Amino acid sequence: MKIMQAVRNSALLSISTLVCFAQSQLQLNLMPMPASVQMGTGQLPITASFSVAVTGARDASLDEELSRFQTQLSRQTGIPLHPGAGVPPKLTIHAEHAREAVQKLGEDESYELTVIDSSASLRAPTTLGALRGLQTFLQLVQITPDGFAVPAVTIKDQPRFAWRGLMFDVSRHFIPLDVLKRNLDGMAAVKMNVLHWHLSDDQGFRVESKIFPKLHELGSDGMFYTQEEVRELIAYAHDRGIRVVPEFDMPGHSTSWLVGYPELASAPGPFSIGRTIGVYDPVLDPTEETTYKFLEKFIGEMTKLFPDEYFHIGGDEVNGKEWAANPKIQAFMRAHGMKTNQDLQAYFNQHLQKIVAKNHKTMVGWDEILHPDLPKTIVVQSWRGQASLAAAVKPGYSGLLSYGYYLDLMWPASRHYAIDPMADAAATLSPEEKGRILGGESCMWAEWVTPENVDSHIWPRNAAIAERLWSPQSLTDVNSMYTRLNAVSLDLEWLGLTHRSAREQMLQRMAGTGDISALRVLADVVAPGQDYSREDGSKAPIDLRAPLTRLIDAVYPESDTARQFSALVQTYVQSGAKDQTAETQIRTWLTLWRDNDAKLSPLLSQSALLQEDAPLSQDLSALGAAGLQALDYLDNAQTAPDAWKAQQESFFVQARKQRASLLLMVVSPVQQLVESSAGIAVHN
Amino acid sequence: MKIMQAVRNSALLSISTLVCFAQSQLQLNLMPMPASVQMGTGQLPITASFSVAVTGARDASLDEELSRFQTQLSRQTGIPLHPGAGVPPKLTIHAEHAREAVQKLGEDESYELTVIDSSASLRAPTTLGALRGLQTFLQLVQITPDGFAVPAVTIKDQPRFAWRGLMFDVSRHFIPLDVLKRNLDGMAAVKMNVLHWHLSDDQGFRVESKIFPKLHELGSDGMFYTQEEVRELIAYAHDRGIRVVPEFDMPGHSTSWLVGYPELASAPGPFSIGRTIGVYDPVLDPTEETTYKFLEKFIGEMTKLFPDEYFHIGGDEVNGKEWAANPKIQAFMRAHGMKTNQDLQAYFNQHLQKIVAKNHKTMVGWDEILHPDLPKTIVVQSWRGQASLAAAVKPGYSGLLSYGYYLDLMWPASRHYAIDPMADAAATLSPEEKGRILGGESCMWAEWVTPENVDSHIWPRNAAIAERLWSPQSLTDVNSMYTRLNAVSLDLEWLGLTHRSAREQMLQRMAGTGDISALRVLADVVAPGQDYSREDGSKAPIDLRAPLTRLIDAVYPESDTARQFSALVQTYVQSGAKDQTAETQIRTWLTLWRDNDAKLSPLLSQSALLQEDAPLSQDLSALGAAGLQALDYLDNAQTAPDAWKAQQESFFVQARKQRASLLLMVVSPVQQLVESSAGIAVHN
Repeated sequence: MKIMQAVRNSALLSISTLVCFAQSQLQLNLMPMPASVQMGTGQLPITASFSVAVTGARDASLDEELSRFQTQLSRQTGIPLHPGAGVPPKLTIHAEHAREAVQKLGEDESYELTVIDSSASLRAPTTLGALRGLQTFLQLVQITPDGFAVPAVTIKDQPRFAWRGLMFDVSRHFIPLDVLKRNLDGMAAVKMNVLHWHLSDDQGFRVESKIFPKLHELGSDGMFYTQEEVRELIAYAHDRGIRVVPEFDMPGHSTSWLVGYPELASAPGPFSIGRTIGVYDPVLDPTEETTYKFLEKFIGEMTKLFPDEYFHIGGDEVNGKEWAANPKIQAFMRAHGMKTNQDLQAYFNQHLQKIVAKNHKTMVGWDEILHPDLPKTIVVQSWRGQASLAAAVKPGYSGLLSYGYYLDLMWPASRHYAIDPMADAAATLSPEEKGRILGGESCMWAEWVTPENVDSHIWPRNAAIAERLWSPQSLTDVNSMYTRLNAVSLDLEWLGLTHRSAREQMLQRMAGTGDISALRVLADVVAPGQDYSREDGSKAPIDLRAPLTRLIDAVYPESDTARQFSALVQTYVQSGAKDQTAETQIRTWLTLWRDNDAKLSPLLSQSALLQEDAPLSQDLSALGAAGLQALDYLDNAQTAPDAWKAQQESFFVQARKQRASLLLMVVSPVQQLVESSAGIAVHN
Repeated sequence: MKIMQAVRNSALLSISTLVCFAQSQLQLNLMPMPASVQMGTGQLPITASFSVAVTGARDASLDEELSRFQTQLSRQTGIPLHPGAGVPPKLTIHAEHAREAVQKLGEDESYELTVIDSSASLRAPTTLGALRGLQTFLQLVQITPDGFAVPAVTIKDQPRFAWRGLMFDVSRHFIPLDVLKRNLDGMAAVKMNVLHWHLSDDQGFRVESKIFPKLHELGSDGMFYTQEEVRELIAYAHDRGIRVVPEFDMPGHSTSWLVGYPELASAPGPFSIGRTIGVYDPVLDPTEETTYKFLEKFIGEMTKLFPDEYFHIGGDEVNGKEWAANPKIQAFMRAHGMKTNQDLQAYFNQHLQKIVAKNHKTMVGWDEILHPDLPKTIVVQSWRGQASLAAAVKPGYSGLLSYGYYLDLMWPASRHYAIDPMADAAATLSPEEKGRILGGESCMWAEWVTPENVDSHIWPRNAAIAERLWSPQSLTDVNSMYTRLNAVSLDLEWLGLTHRSAREQMLQRMAGTGDISALRVLADVVAPGQDYSREDGSKAPIDLRAPLTRLIDAVYPESDTARQFSALVQTYVQSGAKDQTAETQIRTWLTLWRDNDAKLSPLLSQSALLQEDAPLSQDLSALGAAGLQALDYLDNAQTAPDAWKAQQESFFVQARKQRASLLLMVVSPVQQLVESSAGIAVHN
């Protein structure tokens, strides 16, 4: 208990520092926020002669990082760096020790960064910590009236959790190596340290196997990573302080394996690659010795390819239909006294765990692998919630939280940010139990993303999750989070991520050669429905090869405009309709929206990709008109007529409906204005 | 005469077709416009099953092109192409012959493309023509109410000139290979066929020489292309139907050579790489046999590296100062009866021409190499104008026009478009003389560009020059050109060019984490001063390593907004202030500008990179206010008071001045409104 208390105190300390920042109007756009920040006075200018010296340990990955650091600094500022000979270094880096050749869970990532007006010093126990500190330094660089500079500051920082990951599904849609690389750059920028690479599923097997080549040859449509590419990506990740944990999902989610090796299946086959969204029935046969012979060789090959000490075997969502339908398997279960499919899967997992352990790896799997028959060394990744997580760590397993961090659920960043691995059911755990919660992972399931729009489904929201896993638990100010999220989002584009720029291209594709400014206005105030509420209008299963080129595919998962407009309306309503500045801004927005459909509708009608959005555009205009009418009533101190108000209320019901799988995100604040003008007490 | 007349007639024919398009409101966003276009009825849908068949000659470059074609089609439309087995091809390509292994000047680039509602056929004498036709097909793809489609059309096309180039200076600022590659993609899209690679100048020697390694080692700051990279780029260009002509500028513009080999110089040295903008004095010594020994070996090496039949030796801007100051050289000139520096340079060029010819290449040089002592086989590239060009082709030399096509002069596309190689002094040439005008080249001199903003200095304006060199001379409609230029500009971003997107990033850099929408409003209505009028505010020579991160570096060379606003004001004034639709739009713009400075000025003051733009922003607001006042007078049928009018006129004088090297491009139309409101007859 004492250790945790100390951590909490230190967290409180840093929060009080943060409050102090807010008061002094200073803004440090750091994300994740460091454990401790102490502002100084003055600033260190960044000029062409800026140079770096290394005085302590150095290794290849620090050297590589320094080269990237200078490239990135130069790109952000536009200053070509060319320090002359004999110029004293502006940043001195001193690490005590080189980092491990294969990055370990819990390896020291702490650092201290001190900036004064003439120089900066970065100290860390390991070069891995130095990597983290350099990313902090880059985030500190800002344009000022006197040029680019880093404010004087003292930062002491270390992560809250040792495992801070992003799970990347490359099966449902293949994601090329360069897209993964730019996302690794993004992860490093927000200090995430695990890429969990979901490499196989019903819809694709994505790694070359030299022992079982039909896995990738028949299971991937030719879209797979060669082993050389895998090694390239692992090296790329390692250079950035990121471990790569491979996942081969089994015994379910394995249709793509069975295309080439139907003999592993629980049903006769033949099998073909999954083409549609959904959970498939095919499942490995856990009752055959040949299955384990195959897996021994396969896992032997893959554990050599992937150097990380952890190996993920999936284990989720076995529906058991093929087991139930197979008399031989049913007989096996009876003979071994197994009552449920879960028992059979545990039997499979026990075998699997031994194979994994024989290859000197620790097995990781999803919630469903939790079973008393398995040794306590394994790690359970919970997608179901903190209760599942608590259920895993209580008996002695280690755990990871992914519940609440599913990026494909299209939640706003604030909703992810509010989820804490130590909260809810996990809050009452003992310190020792809590100690077995290693961290968490955001998850990018790839049913609805392509290389073109995957960045915008990950970023910037993933940075909020990264902060949750790195920074003190007490850091919960959502407004501060959004301010810093915006800053980090801009930084990330300098790394080559396309989460902002791709929308522009995709809108232009829909619009042909038309002017997209009115389309942008609509795109800014819509967001996809949350929680898998997407529809494509047809009743047939959704083909994963269909184009993802609708407005829903282009828009950001979250509407910043709607959030800011809502805040403005709050301010105005709470002022008793007296805040003139707020009203002027509200009127500007409402007028823009009211007039937008007249500009946009010709464009919508000319494009097959945009026609479905016409009702949204019309309703946005009507919302603008309704809001303006409400403001007029308020300005004239009139109470809006009941009939008008009733008409608006029924319109709001319609405007709230999902159309083209999108929601208009400004209905509530306009409704608030209308209700306010009708003299209704507004509750938030 | 007959041949030319036939060409003219065919050109007139296609123009009448164009007029026809305009009347029927059909828009084909083709650039360059083909020689002949005949619209059909219906359209060919582009779907996932779209496939291509090749029935005639095929070669590696057609195969590569087809693969790129499908990637590009898929990217533009967002449709993953996966034609099933047995699906009949939608596009059939038939070329009679494979193209040459090394592309030749004048190689047949013609093609015929026929599209009906069920299929398309592309026929060409060579696979090179097929390449051109595929680019036309891509430009024809458009979004329609029924999905992506290509309209039914019959196109017969061939280039007007055989040499259609872009000269790329990589010396003043080094341009990495990937940036060159994306620009080659852009060139291929607009059917340009020569990359003239300006590889050496005072400020950098950019190619690895294995024989004289001190050229690149000491002359490049480490920023050069290896020979392997050169071969890679040549292959990349060849695949796209583009020749690569290297230029090694001599005897002047050669400071970077002399850093490593001062013994070649006309002055004692030592020499260092040029760091600033300007014409340098250092020049090779044409009087020493050792100079020619060196050049024999060097040119021997480079002509092997570059397979093209042409070899550019520069030859421009020798100021002769070092020749005049060197008694030995003066004595040599007297001994050989040379009166001028030009005679000495001709002596040098004669030697050079023999070396080039011995290596089976044709020598190309700038205007200044023209001298009766040189054989008629050489090609003269004119940067001085059509008179120079005519002077070259009259005595029998071949010629290229670059005058009027200097992209770094920051001219609007329309000004480049109006320059024709066969116009002015060249118009009176005999057909035979005209036949020696091979074509032209746009020129991208790199004093003021970096890899970050070079694309926007080339594109889209370069497409207008490409059209001038490919399409019939009679094609001169500027409005049509701008409409199609906008379309091709959007297409080019799909190829990875950043001419549009980079501005966004650069504005954001200047603004830090601030909202850039008000900055965009300003950026949209300014343009750099034309004709090297740029100033950096200091009197010192401009260091080429200084950051190029000011607003002038980010903005487009041409303001589309100003052009459109001017047209709107024309319409309004010509209607006698009666066109209400135009007035409404004008008011929207003026209001936006009037209110913009209040939003923008806080941002400007916070950034060292933006402070200099405050006067522009203030004047834009004042222009908005003046224009609105003028409209009010016109609406009320009042004549604006003289005093007010005089005040505005003196403000316009100020507002027209270049500030921060930028010009406000909306002064004239606002002035037109003011003068109109004051009852002054307005002449355009």
